[in-house]
Amino acid sequence: MRARDHGVVVGSGTPGPGNAITDVPGVRVGHTTLISGDGPRVVGVGPVRTGVTVVLPHEGSAFDEPVYAGVHWLNGNGEITGMAFLREFGVLGSPIGLTNTGSVGVVRDALVEIEIGALRKGSQSWSLPVVGETWDGSLNDIDGRHVTAAHVKEAYARASSGPVEEGAVGGGTGMICHGFKGGIGTASRVADGYTVGVLVQANHGARERLTVNGVNVGRWLPESPAPYEGAGSIIGIVATDAPLLPHQCRRLAQRAGLGVARTGGAGENSSGDGFLCFATGNRNLPANALDANPPRTYQVTVLADEYIDPLFYAVIEATEEAIVNALVAAETMTGADGLTIPGLDGATLANLLS
Amino acid sequence: MRARDHGVVVGSGTPGPGNAITDVPGVRVGHTTLISGDGPRVVGVGPVRTGVTVVLPHEGSAFDEPVYAGVHWLNGNGEITGMAFLREFGVLGSPIGLTNTGSVGVVRDALVEIEIGALRKGSQSWSLPVVGETWDGSLNDIDGRHVTAAHVKEAYARASSGPVEEGAVGGGTGMICHGFKGGIGTASRVADGYTVGVLVQANHGARERLTVNGVNVGRWLPESPAPYEGAGSIIGIVATDAPLLPHQCRRLAQRAGLGVARTGGAGENSSGDGFLCFATGNRNLPANALDANPPRTYQVTVLADEYIDPLFYAVIEATEEAIVNALVAAETMTGADGLTIPGLDGATLANLLS
Amino acid sequence: MRARDHGVVVGSGTPGPGNAITDVPGVRVGHTTLISGDGPRVVGVGPVRTGVTVVLPHEGSAFDEPVYAGVHWLNGNGEITGMAFLREFGVLGSPIGLTNTGSVGVVRDALVEIEIGALRKGSQSWSLPVVGETWDGSLNDIDGRHVTAAHVKEAYARASSGPVEEGAVGGGTGMICHGFKGGIGTASRVADGYTVGVLVQANHGARERLTVNGVNVGRWLPESPAPYEGAGSIIGIVATDAPLLPHQCRRLAQRAGLGVARTGGAGENSSGDGFLCFATGNRNLPANALDANPPRTYQVTVLADEYIDPLFYAVIEATEEAIVNALVAAETMTGADGLTIPGLDGATLANLLS
Amino acid sequence: MRARDHGVVVGSGTPGPGNAITDVPGVRVGHTTLISGDGPRVVGVGPVRTGVTVVLPHEGSAFDEPVYAGVHWLNGNGEITGMAFLREFGVLGSPIGLTNTGSVGVVRDALVEIEIGALRKGSQSWSLPVVGETWDGSLNDIDGRHVTAAHVKEAYARASSGPVEEGAVGGGTGMICHGFKGGIGTASRVADGYTVGVLVQANHGARERLTVNGVNVGRWLPESPAPYEGAGSIIGIVATDAPLLPHQCRRLAQRAGLGVARTGGAGENSSGDGFLCFATGNRNLPANALDANPPRTYQVTVLADEYIDPLFYAVIEATEEAIVNALVAAETMTGADGLTIPGLDGATLANLLS
Repeated sequence: MRARDHGVVVGSGTPGPGNAITDVPGVRVGHTTLISGDGPRVVGVGPVRTGVTVVLPHEGSAFDEPVYAGVHWLNGNGEITGMAFLREFGVLGSPIGLTNTGSVGVVRDALVEIEIGALRKGSQSWSLPVVGETWDGSLNDIDGRHVTAAHVKEAYARASSGPVEEGAVGGGTGMICHGFKGGIGTASRVADGYTVGVLVQANHGARERLTVNGVNVGRWLPESPAPYEGAGSIIGIVATDAPLLPHQCRRLAQRAGLGVARTGGAGENSSGDGFLCFATGNRNLPANALDANPPRTYQVTVLADEYIDPLFYAVIEATEEAIVNALVAAETMTGADGLTIPGLDGATLANLLS
Repeated sequence: MRARDHGVVVGSGTPGPGNAITDVPGVRVGHTTLISGDGPRVVGVGPVRTGVTVVLPHEGSAFDEPVYAGVHWLNGNGEITGMAFLREFGVLGSPIGLTNTGSVGVVRDALVEIEIGALRKGSQSWSLPVVGETWDGSLNDIDGRHVTAAHVKEAYARASSGPVEEGAVGGGTGMICHGFKGGIGTASRVADGYTVGVLVQANHGARERLTVNGVNVGRWLPESPAPYEGAGSIIGIVATDAPLLPHQCRRLAQRAGLGVARTGGAGENSSGDGFLCFATGNRNLPANALDANPPRTYQVTVLADEYIDPLFYAVIEATEEAIVNALVAAETMTGADGLTIPGLDGATLANLLS
Repeated sequence: MRARDHGVVVGSGTPGPGNAITDVPGVRVGHTTLISGDGPRVVGVGPVRTGVTVVLPHEGSAFDEPVYAGVHWLNGNGEITGMAFLREFGVLGSPIGLTNTGSVGVVRDALVEIEIGALRKGSQSWSLPVVGETWDGSLNDIDGRHVTAAHVKEAYARASSGPVEEGAVGGGTGMICHGFKGGIGTASRVADGYTVGVLVQANHGARERLTVNGVNVGRWLPESPAPYEGAGSIIGIVATDAPLLPHQCRRLAQRAGLGVARTGGAGENSSGDGFLCFATGNRNLPANALDANPPRTYQVTVLADEYIDPLFYAVIEATEEAIVNALVAAETMTGADGLTIPGLDGATLANLLS
Repeated sequence: MRARDHGVVVGSGTPGPGNAITDVPGVRVGHTTLISGDGPRVVGVGPVRTGVTVVLPHEGSAFDEPVYAGVHWLNGNGEITGMAFLREFGVLGSPIGLTNTGSVGVVRDALVEIEIGALRKGSQSWSLPVVGETWDGSLNDIDGRHVTAAHVKEAYARASSGPVEEGAVGGGTGMICHGFKGGIGTASRVADGYTVGVLVQANHGARERLTVNGVNVGRWLPESPAPYEGAGSIIGIVATDAPLLPHQCRRLAQRAGLGVARTGGAGENSSGDGFLCFATGNRNLPANALDANPPRTYQVTVLADEYIDPLFYAVIEATEEAIVNALVAAETMTGADGLTIPGLDGATLANLLS
């Protein structure tokens, strides 16, 4: 059940057919969800409430066929690896992994292994993959580090276009958002013939500030048992099939933060609110590999900036709806030390908005 | 044997007592060096020519006692994790790890384990460690990923002040610099009562461009057997006991790139040339942890910018000498597939400069 | 008449005594308003609907006594001079001028003359003043460049603490915001014992997107006669007496953009949405002047980041209210070529919100 | 007389036919040089030793036909207006003006008048021109502000391709570099079929650190009478006909700073060392104007990053030679209060290098 299934329609724009990041042709998403154990936290044993999500920008290898990309931080209390490379070259040249804060490394190295070791047979190449994180240490035995390279390979192998599972799945399994159970959410908008899709791993926000369609519903919702409410983080992935250059992707990435703000976020001090936008409108970019020997020059198409506002509005709105979808899709979860975080009931939300 | 042991004195400044980054009081360095096997490359088996270096900014835990810091990229074809956090808060709040490109993740997660799991007993905390890398895939079975969490813990445990081992050690074990065997190098300068120390993991540069004290010695040195010469990367860590604020650290970090340029580097396209500067002149900074409950405000001392030029000059010169020390200290190495990379003989270099 | 005079209370925070940027002790604001002529536009003659606003961070000279500062652009289709200096040194070391797009230069040079020529008697010094702008070419003969150095000196001389004139005054005289007459607006919040004040020169936004307290009132307001609606720009000045370092000021500056977003802005393509935050909590910073000879080091107080969220929330809310104040205070204006831009009636707005 | 006329050949690359920024087809340069008066400084009277230089990226209007561009600061104690726009859109959309620190505003507004008032007849447009500066207050009555809009229009009108006057001309008239008379210098390199041209306004550096081709000639040259030696600033304009995207231009801009470093600069604290690179390889970019109505998308050509190193090397070397040309071309000048700054004699320099 998603927000629209409860009659909660965010904003006024038109979603794509699946109202998901996968409405951007070629984009694939795969999750590995790890849920096991109950009761007191025993580091290394559980309870386990975590996972990994992989987002692929198209049907091929991003290492061999990069796409233009840009990144923006609303608040940098978080990690997205691969940022220096992305900023220097303006491309996404790897899969994107999303996981918990303590597992960034294992996911990152596993993506190197997939790209270089498996796909390129150990050729003289290097990869600097993009892995983002949010912290699930309230519900999950985060210090037990339960995500393995095998889990990453599974998520990679499962990555597909079509419907995206939301809520307590993949990297979002153990997340908490605005005091309620959070996790993965997605939404899309059609804007002037292009599609903009957003996927969030939502673990941020205070209950009291939660706002949907301008209505500060958080004030009327019950207090949350979440420790450190308002801490957390949100990572947003923005995809579009518009032909954007790197600096235009960066502009879209910043607008995702405006969607967070309209939903009640503020880039709080202990929140890592980072956004990455990639654009698949140009698919012939050369790989960054010593053995690539690309043609000396290549041709790309560029959207004139004059026409970019509809994409900005689409990013804002799709980010808002992706956050609401994460909240509505995630069900009540009990995790480490018996902590129970309630799901936000879609019917209750719909009532507050009517 | 270091450059000065051969009579090669870089620049005109005065080094600290050890001419090393550890001249900055409290700074500690530890290496784990992995060398095993010979002959043809078998992924996962060897030959192994790699390792990990840990740099700690003082005698305590950087997580509990951060220090102000800044970062600059001359060319971002590389990785330094933890950059978003470092830029948002202006602090280094973790150990620094240096390793090969494929092992960034394992080193990163191991540092989380050390800081949060071991030192803070799994408290509700997160860490976003700083790990830099350069690529040793010519001499090392990099796709075999031979660095483990145990190796990181060893390097961390060994970290000490005093003399720093240079050349083919730690993260620098398999590196190639200006066509010769490279690796770890360090140097320091005393500037207006403060100490500036630099440590590099040098894997960058073309043979032909190598320049020492303004003399383009590379032109007179034999051609290098290094594949992809001029590719590579250099990571530079700048430490000082001056009381600098974050933006002043960033200014010093950029000057390390000028030292690279004066030695013949150019931030080449396939080179990841990144520099991090931390300043230990203020030691009372609050931790970034939810359970920290620091005092509301704290006092710091700031060096007036008017007096910063001697530190700039010191960074430039110490970076130059650290690169030369890496070259002179590293001995000829034979690695994967029998590739032999010659060491740069200190006596030869001294002759070319006389 | 301001928003609160009509019963429109933005958000839930507590304003300072004047609900203005001048609630931050020492902050001074002065306007020169230029209104003359009617009828067809004759370049160089009129009609004139423009001016200049000067904001001073304290009772003294910012050149001699800089304050820490940071800047953030939500969308850089605009100008704030002095940015390179501000970013390198982390200080505001000049008055701030706000004017129309075509008059940035004359205001900038006049501020140099005031600071260096008048106050420092032509000593061997230079100044790199901060001047922001928005475009008033619909109502004003902007190409006639009617702002002179004398107007800047008047605004500087008039700068005072206490109530701030709002609406169609100073640099905001000819501005248009969300389709209505815009201009200068201000508001403040008390947050954890500190004061945060915001002053905007609001010339941005589409009528349809105007949102107050989450209510999208713009949809119910009449269409605007404004040409190029949604173009425009907004410059926001954030002041606080909290003891913030430069990077913390930059963090607050970014939050002003979230206030713009919550009011319906999106950093539209043709909008220059830039924000500067200064913090007066440390007043002993050395001047950036060759004849300054400051002490080698100085002491400053720093707010622990752990306590910064209330300031973030205050910036967001004060920015929202400052925009609404600009709209409510500005009265209907007829300008060049007889174009009439309606003021937003406060009572109408109050009705829509009730 | 230029460096090569004295046998001083910097580096090993091949210059273009004119060894000047104007070797990049279409690039035009124009100077207005203001020299009058002698003896004691009387503010507003003289002595006058200043001017303005205009650089145009091609034969048309950059407002109507922007070119991709990027900017980098080695040390931001200076001003380049128009930076926010340039970074947001990745284009140079105006002429470039170079002048003294106190005259940035008048030059900036005059360029608006030329572009919008004259060329576009006051249409509903705005311009955010690029004006850089260095400080000539030692030789020039800088507080007298002798540059007028008329001088800017003259320089603009004179702008032409072909040989570029160097030394004490235009914006460089009163400048001091490494203790000697400085000013405007230019050089170019042919790199892989593309041309890279650099023009500097050189007012930076300490005498003792001056280095040419790696030889620290400054140590052997007489002490300088220049007050505040080592203060100053350098602005560098890099032009190329390669088809570069904005982020690639920014990469080239940073390399100009490496050329400064190799000549003995360090981005000293009181130096504003800023670099702007534009690339004319794509000439069909849409204007940033509300009345532009460009096609929705356009096609551009991109140089694969794999082939960018020769351009990096060319920027470094051309910057070095441009600085040396500025020094060699500028003759001894006596200015305000009788201060005499010696020219660097080309024959002396050649002797020191032989």
